[in-house]
Formats: sequence, structure tokens, C-alpha cells
Amino acid sequence: MIVVLKHNVPQAKKEQLITWLEHLGLRIHVSDGDYQTVLGLIGDTTQVDMDLVASLEIVDSVKRVTEPFKCCNRKFHPDDMVVEVGDVKIGGGHFALIAGPCSVESEEQIVTVAKAVKASGATLLRGGAFKPRTSPYDFAGLKAEGLELLKIARAETGLPIVTELMNIMDIPLFEDVDVIQVGARNMQNFDLLRELGKLDKPILLKRGLANTLKELLMSAEYIMANGNERVILCERGIRTFSDYTRNTLDLSAVPMLHELTHLPVIVDPSHATGIARIVPPMALAGAASGADGLIIEVHNDPMHALCDGAQSLRPEEFDALAKKIFAVREIVKA
Amino acid sequence: MIVVLKHNVPQAKKEQLITWLEHLGLRIHVSDGDYQTVLGLIGDTTQVDMDLVASLEIVDSVKRVTEPFKCCNRKFHPDDMVVEVGDVKIGGGHFALIAGPCSVESEEQIVTVAKAVKASGATLLRGGAFKPRTSPYDFAGLKAEGLELLKIARAETGLPIVTELMNIMDIPLFEDVDVIQVGARNMQNFDLLRELGKLDKPILLKRGLANTLKELLMSAEYIMANGNERVILCERGIRTFSDYTRNTLDLSAVPMLHELTHLPVIVDPSHATGIARIVPPMALAGAASGADGLIIEVHNDPMHALCDGAQSLRPEEFDALAKKIFAVREIVKA
Amino acid sequence: MIVVLKHNVPQAKKEQLITWLEHLGLRIHVSDGDYQTVLGLIGDTTQVDMDLVASLEIVDSVKRVTEPFKCCNRKFHPDDMVVEVGDVKIGGGHFALIAGPCSVESEEQIVTVAKAVKASGATLLRGGAFKPRTSPYDFAGLKAEGLELLKIARAETGLPIVTELMNIMDIPLFEDVDVIQVGARNMQNFDLLRELGKLDKPILLKRGLANTLKELLMSAEYIMANGNERVILCERGIRTFSDYTRNTLDLSAVPMLHELTHLPVIVDPSHATGIARIVPPMALAGAASGADGLIIEVHNDPMHALCDGAQSLRPEEFDALAKKIFAVREIVKA
Amino acid sequence: MIVVLKHNVPQAKKEQLITWLEHLGLRIHVSDGDYQTVLGLIGDTTQVDMDLVASLEIVDSVKRVTEPFKCCNRKFHPDDMVVEVGDVKIGGGHFALIAGPCSVESEEQIVTVAKAVKASGATLLRGGAFKPRTSPYDFAGLKAEGLELLKIARAETGLPIVTELMNIMDIPLFEDVDVIQVGARNMQNFDLLRELGKLDKPILLKRGLANTLKELLMSAEYIMANGNERVILCERGIRTFSDYTRNTLDLSAVPMLHELTHLPVIVDPSHATGIARIVPPMALAGAASGADGLIIEVHNDPMHALCDGAQSLRPEEFDALAKKIFAVREIVKA
Repeated sequence: MIVVLKHNVPQAKKEQLITWLEHLGLRIHVSDGDYQTVLGLIGDTTQVDMDLVASLEIVDSVKRVTEPFKCCNRKFHPDDMVVEVGDVKIGGGHFALIAGPCSVESEEQIVTVAKAVKASGATLLRGGAFKPRTSPYDFAGLKAEGLELLKIARAETGLPIVTELMNIMDIPLFEDVDVIQVGARNMQNFDLLRELGKLDKPILLKRGLANTLKELLMSAEYIMANGNERVILCERGIRTFSDYTRNTLDLSAVPMLHELTHLPVIVDPSHATGIARIVPPMALAGAASGADGLIIEVHNDPMHALCDGAQSLRPEEFDALAKKIFAVREIVKA
Repeated sequence: MIVVLKHNVPQAKKEQLITWLEHLGLRIHVSDGDYQTVLGLIGDTTQVDMDLVASLEIVDSVKRVTEPFKCCNRKFHPDDMVVEVGDVKIGGGHFALIAGPCSVESEEQIVTVAKAVKASGATLLRGGAFKPRTSPYDFAGLKAEGLELLKIARAETGLPIVTELMNIMDIPLFEDVDVIQVGARNMQNFDLLRELGKLDKPILLKRGLANTLKELLMSAEYIMANGNERVILCERGIRTFSDYTRNTLDLSAVPMLHELTHLPVIVDPSHATGIARIVPPMALAGAASGADGLIIEVHNDPMHALCDGAQSLRPEEFDALAKKIFAVREIVKA
Repeated sequence: MIVVLKHNVPQAKKEQLITWLEHLGLRIHVSDGDYQTVLGLIGDTTQVDMDLVASLEIVDSVKRVTEPFKCCNRKFHPDDMVVEVGDVKIGGGHFALIAGPCSVESEEQIVTVAKAVKASGATLLRGGAFKPRTSPYDFAGLKAEGLELLKIARAETGLPIVTELMNIMDIPLFEDVDVIQVGARNMQNFDLLRELGKLDKPILLKRGLANTLKELLMSAEYIMANGNERVILCERGIRTFSDYTRNTLDLSAVPMLHELTHLPVIVDPSHATGIARIVPPMALAGAASGADGLIIEVHNDPMHALCDGAQSLRPEEFDALAKKIFAVREIVKA
Repeated sequence: MIVVLKHNVPQAKKEQLITWLEHLGLRIHVSDGDYQTVLGLIGDTTQVDMDLVASLEIVDSVKRVTEPFKCCNRKFHPDDMVVEVGDVKIGGGHFALIAGPCSVESEEQIVTVAKAVKASGATLLRGGAFKPRTSPYDFAGLKAEGLELLKIARAETGLPIVTELMNIMDIPLFEDVDVIQVGARNMQNFDLLRELGKLDKPILLKRGLANTLKELLMSAEYIMANGNERVILCERGIRTFSDYTRNTLDLSAVPMLHELTHLPVIVDPSHATGIARIVPPMALAGAASGADGLIIEVHNDPMHALCDGAQSLRPEEFDALAKKIFAVREIVKA
């Protein structure tokens, strides 16, 4: 950590700060510039409250040199992590195509969609049983029953299942789920993350609407620091002023995250745009950006979907898209 | 709800849509313009998936005429709600000054601060026992012990206590707390909101970092629709591109919310700015904007605070500020 | 335009508003709902001040049915516009690869880069002679001399040249330039746009950092309404809270703009990210999103570039990238 | 400037970078941490391309220690600047109340409004003659004729006039204007700023919709570095995701700018909100935040205003507001 002092700080105040920092177990390296003094803090600075130091009267600004995340930091883990879900691999050159409906609605619906997406090349099945809804008056999912229907679809197709958990108390219900998804609104539900860190199961962690990449990594850190290293990151659009689309898909997050962490990074073009006819170009763009996978909403009857029908592709649209996704992926990998 | 159709839509497709909407129990009012047809949907449209209708090929755009919130809608509740916490009233002309440390750290600390802020005119005591922290390595609060210390400070001063709840499972611990706070990161933790709706206790609901006013009201609606009408809204800064301050305090939210809802609206200048020396002007601005209260961090020893020391005022700074707040409040009320 | 009135508006006030609107030359279609009255305004509503109507005491909200842009509206121009620059075509299936240095620095530099990018498949040469710089102390371009050097590079390679104009008074200097670029900071320099509308020359119009798609189209409208229909739109990143990259490239703008307008849409991954090593994935993502072209910074010696060296590719990096861009483009077009 | 190197950088590469930096005339102070090496660059670093250094393979990150602005930097100008406009003073304890219509429409209108706002305590008269409009089809102001009408109103009331300039070529028309306003969309029209720096006249510089405080200061620097030190900064709302108001008024900019610069800072609550009934609370909040002045739209007949009628106060509303503004100002100053 680097602490830049203001111009003309009295020597006594400077020494007082240095003594205080040394009491935190740090060594201090003093460097006097033409105009200002700079302190280099050497040692374990994770316990130093950066904002507090910055607020001191004699301090001009503070900068962290080492990131506050460790478990998910590529600096300490240069090789890509490959997350295994049964036979399916994600990351390190392995591309995951995850597809399925926003909500599980019935056995017929989920099995039909599962078979269709598998035939198109999907490697995992997604489907919501517990649904976060902005309005208390909207359909909130089939809950436990939905999980059972997902397992039936898995049995019929062999596709591992990915589904969202909203609440610590529901964890026991998810024992037989293959990948647990943490939704954007729960990205900083720290109690939930801590509990998921105690499971032996891959976690799909979605970036919050207004969260920076550093915050996303700190949330991954919560899971990993508690013992569960199998975290998959997901960019799904951020909130901006931009009109016409629901969110702004931030694809530059993909290569940036690949620099910062060894965890796999996937893209959700369905929630990012909220408009089915924009999903295919954004899915292709996601593949072209180097993502390790895509998660796409597919529904056999979007007009009658109980949730987010507006952003769901029909199976035949998904099939045409999947072919192009694999083709783009080949070019990117080359 | 109003549905604007595209130019030159075939009559058959138009009738098909009208029939489908009528099956949802709505009456449809057709209005043909020079260029486009507009459908007026009359009846209960809360069940209509606006995004789905907007995504139909023949539809140009969709607009809701009535807001999707009811319990907290001023249209149906023209008089200000006054939330009572013991003898203290908030809203409808009653101003609440809530103060205290970010985290409860010890009996001495919380009692000292409580006495000081009471002497300066604070009407409620705040203090965190369960702390949401971005990093898994940071101090996360004294938890149950912290709640006990708050109760001691209440006993000593008579100030009702406000403290944050992060997790449904902790609700039993909060039975004797006066006001439960829902933090910004939990504003859309819908399961939590639903449970709080079953309590008989005021809820202080903070606006999320990237949430619109409509979403804030929908979250209040979750609590109220489950039976608990005593909700206090809190603006605490939103996330923008702006540099230098941690967040951007959106004070225009105060008069806008007063138009949209009858619930009281308070302002948190401490979290919005993250910088103690900016708190006083923003607190005064909050009072001047017409807020029904302020919630301000005060610590007797910010340099050694375990959390957010950078944004805490010293008791003597708070005292000077409180005098000005009350003076501004008098002008605004006049 | 649709005007939604508040609940329980007195009949007299309602009639007063209708009379006022009729005086603006509109026909008014009244539709009474269960709860609120809706007015449909039929006729030319471009002169109606939507914000003023919305601010009236009896009005709940207002919605435009027809967009305020006409010249660039796909509704009235269903076929893609193909912009021709000499033999080069952009839009309607024709893909433009525009490359070159941020700033023109010397004859040797610009000719070297021009030859290199042409060999890699670029179809136009870019290079800045007049440079907008945030700081008054930074290099602001070679100005008129830079334009001459660009013409030399054009003579040597046959590539048409694209370069930025910042100021109406400089228009005469740009007579022999092939495409005039309007930078992001000038997107709403309305006087400049109006003058460019009087030229017979393609205009490359960049989206402003904080501008919506509708505002971008209104700026194109300024140029087109003055007589110049050859406008190329360019997405180059918007300003958000996101860390690590300079801006957030909003690729969903590409398919959305293709719906709204018949004008060609290109993508600038260099300015959007500001980091050379992120440019290739974002360029590929741009091509995959369906853009009609890309504009990419290439410099033979980025370490010694006078401007934006951090985001420039070396010629050999550009060559490898161009091959992949063309391959992705083939898949998307198929 | 501080340059943090990556872990395990080869000694040869490190020395190569140091040599390169020394060639730029800097002295380099090397500090080896446990994990990383930090270079302190001592000397004039304004010429160093921070982004380029950050992009080097061996560099982890870069931080500027001294801000790139000088003329407007409070570090070098500890005393508040007082801008004088005739007898009127702004800054350093002097509060300016600037009021008038969005557009000048007729002699009767501007004189009527000028007399009214003067009677309420306004110290300067605002009025637009050249109007930036998003749509090419909207009223763009009376131009030169509008300036003449403003001068008539000044003659009648003695109020100095403030009006917007959009274009370098119009500067001669503004010779007899008291304060030239640079609108938000022109904040980074660098050629315009440079020319305004050559005038002997106060400049009211509005913050752009998506500009940081640092960029605002750099734009002030453009004017000041060219010789004109009389710059007044104006916060007028930034673009965010927030619904209901047109922009988000960022009042924390006021105390932050007061720390960073000695220039006066005023607030425009009218453009920030776009809604007349929200203007009074935001004006009071602006005064409470410590602003050196307010600029408020007042129109004698908002329903028939040719521009922005929705955000204009009536003279009697302004009169009531002005009394409260002065009262709040007294409290803040105390």
C-alpha cells in the first residue's frame, strides 16, 4: 500500500502516522519527492482500512498495490481453473453452452426444452425453480417442485442442471443440483456466499447490476475462502443510462477478468438485453470476446412463458444460433 | 396499460392480439391514429407481462398507466404516513435524527456515543451488530453480543435502537430491536422482505446502489403486501461514474418519493459520501431537500473505529451540525 | 403522443387542456379507463413540448408514439443505406475495416502504417490531425500539416482517409478529406452538425460518452435534415461505474441501431477500452455483433506514440486480428 | 507519479524502463517491497503518458501523485477566488442568485421577468439567446436579437447578464455580455475554451452530463492557462440510471470542488431536475451544500414558454423560494 502525504506536512505529524502504521505490523519505506512525501507500506496490508488512512488530514491519497483478493487472483494461480460438473468441463479451453427456460413450468415443458437444447449442442440445462421477482405480485417459481422436474429432465437427457438458490434455508433442497446459481441481486449476500463456500459443488456467481469487477472477485473470494474453489463467474449486463435495452452487456469484463483471475467466465446475453431478437448477436459477441461459455434462455412457447418470455429464444432459433456460436468459438480459440 | 402497434399491422394479427388480451380478463379500447393504432387495456393489468407484449412482432411499444405498486402509492393514500417508534414519530412533519457508530464495538463505546448524540438532539440510536463487508477478511460485527450492547445503550439513554438485519435466520435475535434496517445490498432480497412483512415492527429500507425509485417502492410493497405497513425509505447514494466521492447522493429522490408515496423518506449522508468532512454539507442539503430525517455516523474515536471510521463524525462535530440541521429544518417546514 | 391524466381530474380542467392541444393543430381522441383518462394526440406532434405537458398539474405522464427522428428512421427507410467512399462501400452487407494511428506524427509514420494496414485488409485509413485532449498541456495534433501527410499516405496506398474535425472554422481545410469524423465530445455540437449537413461528404458520427441511442439518432438527424444523408454511426464506449476499462463498450447498440435506423453502424474497440491487449477480443465481439465495420488504432511504435499509445496495436498484431475479424464476419453474414 | 511493477520482473527489463523514464528528465526512486517493486518518479511528470506506462507488460499499475491541473488547483491558491461582475461578487463568501427565463422570447417577457427576479433579490439575469436543442426541429433561440433584448433588460434593471455561447464564430456578438456561459454539452469543446481564455470576461462553465470533477477542472484549466482566470464552475446534474428526474443533481460536487479548487461553485437545480415542482427543494439543498450561488429558471408564463417551460418557476414561486434560500444561506455561513 502506498500513502501519499500532503505538501508541507509537519515532521511530528508524519512520524506519528509512521509509528501508528508500524504498530499495525508494517514496515514503512519513506520516499521524499520534490513536492510530497510518499510512504510505502510493506507487509500484510489487508487489515489496513484504506478509507480511514485516506481521510487523515495529512494524507493526500492512498493506493493499494496488491489486490485484496487472493484465492481467485491469477497472480497466485497462473493456470486456468477447469471446473468439472460430472463429465462436463468449463474453462481452460472448455466451452460450456448452458440453455433452458427462465422458469420451470411443467414436466412436459422442461423435458421438451431439455431435449431440444441438447440436440443443438447444449452441455448443461438451466431452469429457474426459485425466482427473484421485482414485484410481490409476480409468479415466483414452482420452488421444490421445480427442482424435481429439473431432475426428471436431467434423467431424460443426461444434462447436468444449473438453478438459482435465493436463501440459505433452502440449501438442503439443492443437495442433488449440479451447479448452484447465485443471482445478480444476491452477489453481495455475504451470509449466503459464506454458506456456499462450505459446499462441495460448483457455484455460478452472477455479477450484480452495479458491481465492479473487483467486487465480483471479492464475492468469489468469500466462497473460496470458505473452502469451495469451484466458482464460475458470469457477466449478465450492468445498469447504465442507456435506453432501449434492459441492461448494458459489459463484454470487456470477459478479457479483463481473464487477466485478473484464473476462474472461468461466462456470459448471459438473455438477461443483459431482455429482448429475444438481440440475444443472438450478443451471444455471438460473447463467444467472440473469449468467454468460457454462454447461458441462454430457451422456451418452447415464449408467448405463454410465466416469466421473461420476452427474452427467450424458440428451440429452432437456438439451434441456428448454436451452430454459429461453435463456429465463432473455433476462430477465437485458433 | 397502453399498447402502441407498429405501422401497417395486418388486421388479422391485430385481432389475434386483442383476443389474447381479452382472455386475460381485460377490456380493450382501440384507437386508430394517422399512422399507428393504439390499444388501451382496461382492467387489472398487474398480471400482464409488459416486456412480453413489447417483444411481439406487431408491437411498437408498451406503457403502464398505473404504477405496479399499490400499498405504498400516494394515489391511494394521500395523507403522509407517520411511523411511530415508541414515543418517537417519523414523517408527516416529524423529523428524526438518527445517529450512532457504524459498528457497535464495546459497551463503553456505544453508551458514550449514545449519550453524546442524545445530548445533541438525536431521537434514535443507530449501530451495526451484523455488518455486510465487501471483503471476507474484514470485521463483520459483534453480532448477537452487539445487539445486547445496543439494548444497554437504550436503557441508559431511552433512545430507540435501529440496527441492520442481514439474514432471515437471525430474525429471532431482533425481537427486542425497535427498528430493523435493511441494507442497500439487501434491498432486493425478496425472501427477507417477505418475512419482514410478517413482523409488527418498523422497517428502515435503504435504496440499493443501482436501484430506481420504482424498484425501491416495489421492495417496500413486498413488506407492506405481507402486512407490515411501517416502512421508512432511505436514500443513501447511488453508483455513478463520478470520482472523489464513494457514491452520488441523489437528493432529488426525496421530493420525488414524497410525490409517489406517503411513506417517510430519510437520508444517509455518511454512506453516500464516505468522507467525514463532506457529511455536514450533505446532511444540511438532505434536511433542505425536505427529508423526514437523517441517519448519521458518529464515533468517539474514528481513528480506531473497526469499520468506516473515515466517514464518522466526532461527537463535537455532530453537535455543531445538529444545531444547523434543526435550523434548516425550521426554514423548510415554514 | 399519448397523455395520461391523473385520477379524478375535474371535467373543466380536462376540457381546457383538450382545447389547448387542439389549438396546436391536433385532433384529440379521449379514452376513459376505469381509473384514469387517456388522451391520444393525432397529427403532427413534433412541435409539442412533451416535458411541458408532463409537468401540468392534471397530467400523470406522457408518451411519444412516433419517434422524433425522421430522416434516419428505418420506419420510413426500410432498406439499409450503403455509404460510398470512392470505391469503398459501407453498410448493406459491405464491411469496412478502418485502421491507422491515433495521431499523424510524420510522413514516414503514416505511410508505413498505411501500407501495413492495407496489406492486412484495411479499406480506409484513419489518423488524427486535430486532436481533442482533456488537458491543455497535451499534444493537440499536427493540424493542417497532418492533413497533408494523410493525403500523401492516401496517394501511396489508395486508401480513402478518415479524420476528425473539431471546429466549423476548419471545414475549408477538410475539402479533400474523404470522410469527416465527429468525435464523441462533439456529438451534440449542434452548430457543427448543421454545417456538416451542408457538405457532400460522408460523416462518421461517434456516440457521446453519455448519450442515448435516441440522442445519437437526433444528432444524425441534424446532419441529414440539412441535406447530407451519408452518415455512419459509431459506438465507441459509454461512461459507467465499471472499473479497469476506460469506458464500457455497449455492443447491444449495434443490433438496436440496426432496428431503429437504416444507417451503417461501426464499432471502435480502441477508444472503448483504452488497453491494447483488450482490443482484439472486443474487435471480434464487435464483428460478431453485426457491425458494418470497425475502426482500430494501429501504430508502428506504440511506445513512442505521441497520443494514446496504450491502446494501439502493432501492425503484426493487427494483421493477425484482421484475419480473425474477416472469418467472424463470414459466420455472421451467413 | 508512482509506477508499481509486477511480481518477478526480470532485472534487465526493470533497468530498461528506468533508463527510458530518466530520458524523460525524471529522477527515479526505487523501492523494493516483499512482493513487488515500486518506482517513484520525481520531477515534472505532466508530460508522461500515464496510460502508456500502465500498458507496459512489466507494469502492474500507475498512480499520479500530483493532479494534472495547476491554475485552478487550491494547493497553489489557498484563498477563495472572488469573481467580480461589475459590482456583483461571486465566491469567497459572496452568494450569487442568478435567475431568468430559459429563452429570451420578447422584450416584454425578458424585462418583466428581470424586474420580478430583481425584486426578489436576484443579483444577475440569465436568459438564452443561442439555445442548444437535441432536435433540429426545435426552437433554437432568437440569437443576436435575443442578446439585444437582454441588454435592454439590463438597462432597465441594472442586473448584469449571463448568457450561453455555443460557437467561436459568435464571440464578437458577446462583447457586451457580462458573463459568458459554456453549456454542459460544450464543456469539452476545447477550441472554444481556448478562445474564451483570451477574453477579459467571467466564464460560467457548466459540468458536462458525464464528466468527472477532474475533467471539469481540466476544462477550467484550458480557460485559465490561456490567460482568463475568472471561471465560475456550475454543477447541473449528471446522467445516471435514475428514473423520474431528467438528471441526478450531484451536490457532493460542491464541497469536493471547494476542496480541490479556489474557484466559485454554483448549482443549477432547474436543468438538473427538469421539473418545476422539484426545483425549490433542490435549490435549498444546493444552498445548504455550501454553493456560492444558484442559477434558476423563472418564466412569467411557463405554459407558453418556447423552451423548457416544464422546469420554470413563476415569479411568485421564485419570490417565496428566494426568501428561504437567503435564510438557509445565513445558517450555512454562520
